[in-house]
This record gives sequence, structure tokens and C-alpha cells, in this order.
Amino acid sequence: VVRLNRDEWIGRCLVWLAALSAGLVVVLYAKISEWAINLFFGMQRTAWWLPLVLTPVAGMLITWLTLRWFTGVNGSGIPQTMAALNKHHGEAMMHRLVSLKIALAKIVLGTGALAAGFSAGREGPSVQVGASIMIAFKRYLPASFAIEPRHLLLAGGASGISAAFNTPLAGIVFAIEELGRSYEEKTNGVLITAIVLSGLVSISLLGNYTYFGSIEVGEIGADIVIPVIVTGLFCGLVGGLFSRVLIESSRFTPCRLDQFRKYHPVWWAGFCGLMVALLGAVSLGAAHGTGYAYTHQLLGDDFAGTWYYAPVKYLATLFTYLSGVPGGIFAPSLSIGAGFGYELNLLFQDPEIAVAVNALAMTAFLAAVTQAPLTSFIIVMEMINGHAMVISLIAVSFIARVVARLISPPLYATLAANYVAKAD
Amino acid sequence: VVRLNRDEWIGRCLVWLAALSAGLVVVLYAKISEWAINLFFGMQRTAWWLPLVLTPVAGMLITWLTLRWFTGVNGSGIPQTMAALNKHHGEAMMHRLVSLKIALAKIVLGTGALAAGFSAGREGPSVQVGASIMIAFKRYLPASFAIEPRHLLLAGGASGISAAFNTPLAGIVFAIEELGRSYEEKTNGVLITAIVLSGLVSISLLGNYTYFGSIEVGEIGADIVIPVIVTGLFCGLVGGLFSRVLIESSRFTPCRLDQFRKYHPVWWAGFCGLMVALLGAVSLGAAHGTGYAYTHQLLGDDFAGTWYYAPVKYLATLFTYLSGVPGGIFAPSLSIGAGFGYELNLLFQDPEIAVAVNALAMTAFLAAVTQAPLTSFIIVMEMINGHAMVISLIAVSFIARVVARLISPPLYATLAANYVAKAD
Repeated sequence: VVRLNRDEWIGRCLVWLAALSAGLVVVLYAKISEWAINLFFGMQRTAWWLPLVLTPVAGMLITWLTLRWFTGVNGSGIPQTMAALNKHHGEAMMHRLVSLKIALAKIVLGTGALAAGFSAGREGPSVQVGASIMIAFKRYLPASFAIEPRHLLLAGGASGISAAFNTPLAGIVFAIEELGRSYEEKTNGVLITAIVLSGLVSISLLGNYTYFGSIEVGEIGADIVIPVIVTGLFCGLVGGLFSRVLIESSRFTPCRLDQFRKYHPVWWAGFCGLMVALLGAVSLGAAHGTGYAYTHQLLGDDFAGTWYYAPVKYLATLFTYLSGVPGGIFAPSLSIGAGFGYELNLLFQDPEIAVAVNALAMTAFLAAVTQAPLTSFIIVMEMINGHAMVISLIAVSFIARVVARLISPPLYATLAANYVAKAD
Repeated sequence: VVRLNRDEWIGRCLVWLAALSAGLVVVLYAKISEWAINLFFGMQRTAWWLPLVLTPVAGMLITWLTLRWFTGVNGSGIPQTMAALNKHHGEAMMHRLVSLKIALAKIVLGTGALAAGFSAGREGPSVQVGASIMIAFKRYLPASFAIEPRHLLLAGGASGISAAFNTPLAGIVFAIEELGRSYEEKTNGVLITAIVLSGLVSISLLGNYTYFGSIEVGEIGADIVIPVIVTGLFCGLVGGLFSRVLIESSRFTPCRLDQFRKYHPVWWAGFCGLMVALLGAVSLGAAHGTGYAYTHQLLGDDFAGTWYYAPVKYLATLFTYLSGVPGGIFAPSLSIGAGFGYELNLLFQDPEIAVAVNALAMTAFLAAVTQAPLTSFIIVMEMINGHAMVISLIAVSFIARVVARLISPPLYATLAANYVAKAD
């Protein structure tokens, strides 16, 4: 029989409090992001030319602030969390990658980037924010309460994914597949506690929703096999390219463009912002935001897609990431994938499976970009309540991942290794 | 760029063929089991006293055959697969734990046990059968095709879970949580291929069904918190006791009962069969079969449960396992759990949450018996399409597992260690 002493109880209660706080902050972040996107689209409806000024200027300001005071806040947040989880160097650089200061800056600047029209998501940032908040409680834990910082980070990151989109299963699998890369039995307790408590916060505040609603895929038969293979191959290719560009951008060759990016990062951010704004101007705003509305529409019955959505969003998301503003690529990847689904449906010409193909393409593109196929199909399954097509989702995400692997090393692990290399 | 030579292609195709074969056999096994259960209940309806003769005699015959010719066929099949996966001793004893002979005997004798009225499932046996079939293809793989036997076993076991109940996600998680106890990136390929292909076989032959149908849990609010805690604690207790009894039964103390079991296993099997038959006679047949019908009924709208179902099924499943006939405990555990859900509903007195409590109790009891909480909540989620209550399912399975752990060591790992110890 296990007996708990006083310190054990204090430790446990603090871990619960940490998980509740992480869930609360991530949910608030979700609400603020939504508000920021609505604010931007409101401004854009008032004056279509406003983004051409706002996006570059805000991008320059956010990048300047990031470089000056908040290093570690740029980009997704997942590589930072993975670097902090590194067994050899993680602890030494943890304060520069996950902290309350970084969490706050990530939320404020990330929301700012969305309000300025950048194409970004809040999934990656939620991972970093969740991990930052869980680890901030470390110092208050009783000395005799045995818990590794690693486990708090894992639990925080997972609860970030879980609370951000009401996808608790994806949170668990993400912790195993991407963050932890191992299934440690001991992690279980903290990880699951964190996911359940932050999930409860999310459900109490936002209700038990399915992010994209429940899709109606109808009866899926053998006619889905060819679409699965084609979608997997195509999205694997374009997703692999996407991830390769992001990885290459973290290196600076002697060529003139790279030298400009390196020595004038703020001007470069302004240029990227201008590109996003221009893409938005020629696409009726498709370039901006997380892409939620478009994706939701494509998964509904009355889907009215456009051929230019996927390429526009693809480029806008690349420019957003390259600018160095805080922002994730999960949500944009899902909407780029849905956009490619529209393109692929032009090829298959079968309205019966159109919605299913969109879901497949979302999964495949995300799996190709992140090279985390389990997380990808589970997150899509949880977002669309798509249990009926689970085998197709598994298959398409693994095909996409195999193809993407031929083109690009794994995105997050490679970017995390950059942080670790700098620490050496 | 990866280039595949001829041997690589032959190897891959053979792995695909192995996965398709595993899926096919597991699905056939499912059909035969169903037929066997119907056969038994048909006989029982004709003559209520027939089981009192049939169950003991068939149990003696099956146990005699198992002991005489088919050692390794008794019981669940999961401990055998885990023992074969053992890093140090697995390969040496693999032929006694997973082979085509064992797969065939497991199906025939396992079906026989169901036809004779024993209380058993086909989940554990499907794991052993799947692993046996995948590993049987090992000898035909080209020598240069690098694949570890371990990975074939894992993939086969996982596809067994997946194809048995159309629960592919549970198959993946089971391989990570229980069989493999580690997340190896390299396993992914074979594991996922096996699950997708065996899943496709299952869907083509049986359709894309949800094992227990979709349940209607309605709106779940804060009023589920107390039931989650109470159900987790209660099922953790009774499930932990269940697993402790099974573990203790694998040792033989000098007391008279254990000596009888040890030296007269066939007579002992007859006694256990008689007990199952008597339990069935006093419970209108509740003791027999997998418990599918009862569980399905409890998860529907017009649930007419009985207070004696859970204790009767509990004892019948214990006696079935102790008899040594082949048969798993997943399906009976789910139905015992549903039965305890009925009991707990008498306590909560809230018809709004009655179905939800049944689902919670199923998850909690399975999690307590197997001490595999992730697999337990995912398998129930996939069987009832219960995504709406995923946080409650996660919470209840972990509470149950924590309580069960206080009472009993992990069932499958302990039984697997017994096989390994014998090999030393």
C-alpha cells in the first residue's frame, strides 16, 4: 500500500493546480486569438488596402520586440519545447525556451501577429505556453517530491494540444510520438492528470465541442483506395517541400537573400508581411488568419472552394513562418490541406467522396509537414468526429509521411536540434 | 532518396501478405466465435440442464488436449505474445508461444470453449493468433530484408486487436502501451501497415461497424464528476481483485486445493466447467459467452439490467480462466464492467447519466484488470463511438488503474514473466 506524506500531497496538489492553470491560460489564449482574427477581418472589410500597411509594420514591430527582448518566442514553439526536453542540454537552456515571460510574450505577440493578418495557428504556441506554465510551478514543489522537469514539460505541452482544440487523445499521442519519443510508464500519471484537468477547464469554459463539427462522410467503400493513395502521395510531396523550405530557412548561406535575412531581420519581416498582405489582397483575404472558416466550409455540405486557396495559403504561411513572428503551422496546414483536397476533388470528380477527400488531404498535409502521422490522423479524427474513416486517415497519413521523409528531415526535431547545437 | 532493390520489394510484399492473412484469419475467427456462441445458446434453450453436462466435459477435453499437445494455447494469449517479445529469452521460446500450430489450436479450442458455454472473449486470443501468423512469414523473407522478429510480433498482435473489433486506434495504442512498452520509430512502418491492411480486410468482410453501436450519452456536465470518481474507485477495487486472483492462480502453494489443481488439472477443469454451468443455470444463462448481448443492451435506451449479472459473470469468467481453456478476458471484463455500471446506477439514481455510467464502468473495470488504461479507454471509445465523453473515460480509467495497482501487480506482464522464468 502506498502511503503519502505531507510533501507528497502538497506536490500533487501543486501539479493539479499547474495543470488547471495551463488549461485556463490555453483556453483564454484561444478566445483572444479568435477575437484578434475577427478584429483583423473587420478592419480589412472597412479598407481592403489597410493590410498592405498594417501587416508589414506590425510584423516589423513584433519581430523587433522578439529579437530585442523575447528570444525563443518566434515561430511554432514546439521545437523550443523539444529542445528544453533534451536530455543533455535541456535543463541548461530551459529558462530561455520555456518561462512565464516567454508564455506571456508568446500570447501577446502571437495574438498581435494574428490581428495583423499573418497566417498562423495557436497549436504550437499552446504547446510552449502549456509547458512554460507547468514548469513554472517546479520551484514551489517540495524538495522531496520526486518529479523530473521533463515530465512537467511533457505534460504541459500535451495539455496545450489537448486544451487548444478539445483533442485530448491527440495531446497524449503527441506527447508520446513527437515530444517524448518514448513511452515511459512513469510519465503517465502527470501527463494524464494534466490532460484531464486542462481538458475539464476547456470543457467547462467552451463546452464539449468538436472543432470542425461532425462531418458526414457517408458510406465509404473500396472507391476510397485510389483517392487515399493519390492524396497521400501528392500531399506528402507538397508538405515535404513545405517542411524542407522551413528547415532550410534556419540556415544562412552566403547568398545575398540569406545575408539580407541575417543582418536585417526586421526589414525582412516587413517584406514577409508585405507578401502576406499582397497575397491577401489578390485572394479576397484567403491568406490571413488560421484558415478555420474556409476549412470548416469545405468540410460542410455546401462547399464552395476556390482553386487559388491552397497555393495562396501555402505561400502566406511560409512567409509568416519566415518572418519570425510567433505562430504555429498546425491550423494553417490543416486549411492548406483542405484547399488541396478541393484541387484533388477536381481530379476525382466524385461528389460522394468529396468531403472525405478534404479530410484525407488535411490529414496528409499535416502528417507530411510535421512527420508526426499518429498525431495528425488522431487530431483530425478528433476535430471532425471522423471515426468512420479512421483506417483511411491512418493510411493516408503514413503514405504522406513516407513521401515527405524522402524530401525533408523531420521539421520539429531538426529545428529543436538547432537550439541544442547553439547551446553546445 | 531511398532506392529499393529486389529483395526489399519481395520483403515488403510478404509483410503485406502477412498482414492481410492475419486480418483474414482474425475476422474468420470472429465469425466462427459468433456461430459457436449462438450454437451454445440454441442448445441451452432446448434443454436448460445440458450445460451442466456439456460445459464440464468439454472443459476437461479441451484442457486435456491443451496440456497434451498444445501447451501455450491456454488462457488469454497476451502473456504468451509478451513473453515471445522478451528481449533476452523471447526468440528461444518463440516456437512454443506463437506458431501456426498454436494459432490453429487457439481458434479451434477457443471456439470449442465458447460453444461449451465458457465465459471468455476472443481479444487476447486474436493477439496471439495475429502475432503467430505474422511471425510465420518470417522464414520466407529474404535474408537481406532487415526486420526484427519483434516488430512482426508487435504488428501481428496489434492487428489482432484492431481486426477483432474494428478498433484500429486501440491496436496501435495497445502495441505501444502493453506489448512494446516503448515507442520505437522504426516499428511504425510494419505496425501501421499491418493495422491498415488487416483493418481493410475487416472492413471489407464485416463492414465499418462500431462494435456496440453509437451510444447516446446526451449532454454531460459537472454532474459526471462524482460518478467518475466513485466508478473509478469501485471498479478499480473489484478489477484489481480480479487480476490478483488470476495472478495468484498461476502459483501453486502446498495447500490442498492448489495441489489438486496442479496434479489433476483435467478434473479441475471439469470442476470449473461445472461451476460455470451452475452459475449459468441460476442466472438464465448470464454466465455464458462473451457478454456481448447484455452489454449492448445496457448501452441502449431500453436497458433492463439485473443486479446479479455482474457477480455471476465475474465468477464465471474467473472459473473459465482458472480452468485453463483458451479464452480472453477483454470482452467478459467489458460486460462485467457494464454490469457493475447497472449496480452503480442504482446508487446514483440519475437516468440522465445511466448510459454514461455504464460506459465508464466498462472502461474502469477493463483498465483495472489489464492495468492498460490508455488501451482501455480507447477501445471503449472506439466500440461505442464515445468521443463526447473522452475526458471522463480517460479520468475513470486512470483512477481505476491507480487503485488496481495497489491491490495487484500488472496482470499480463506478471503472467508473461512466468513464461520467461520457466525458460531460464
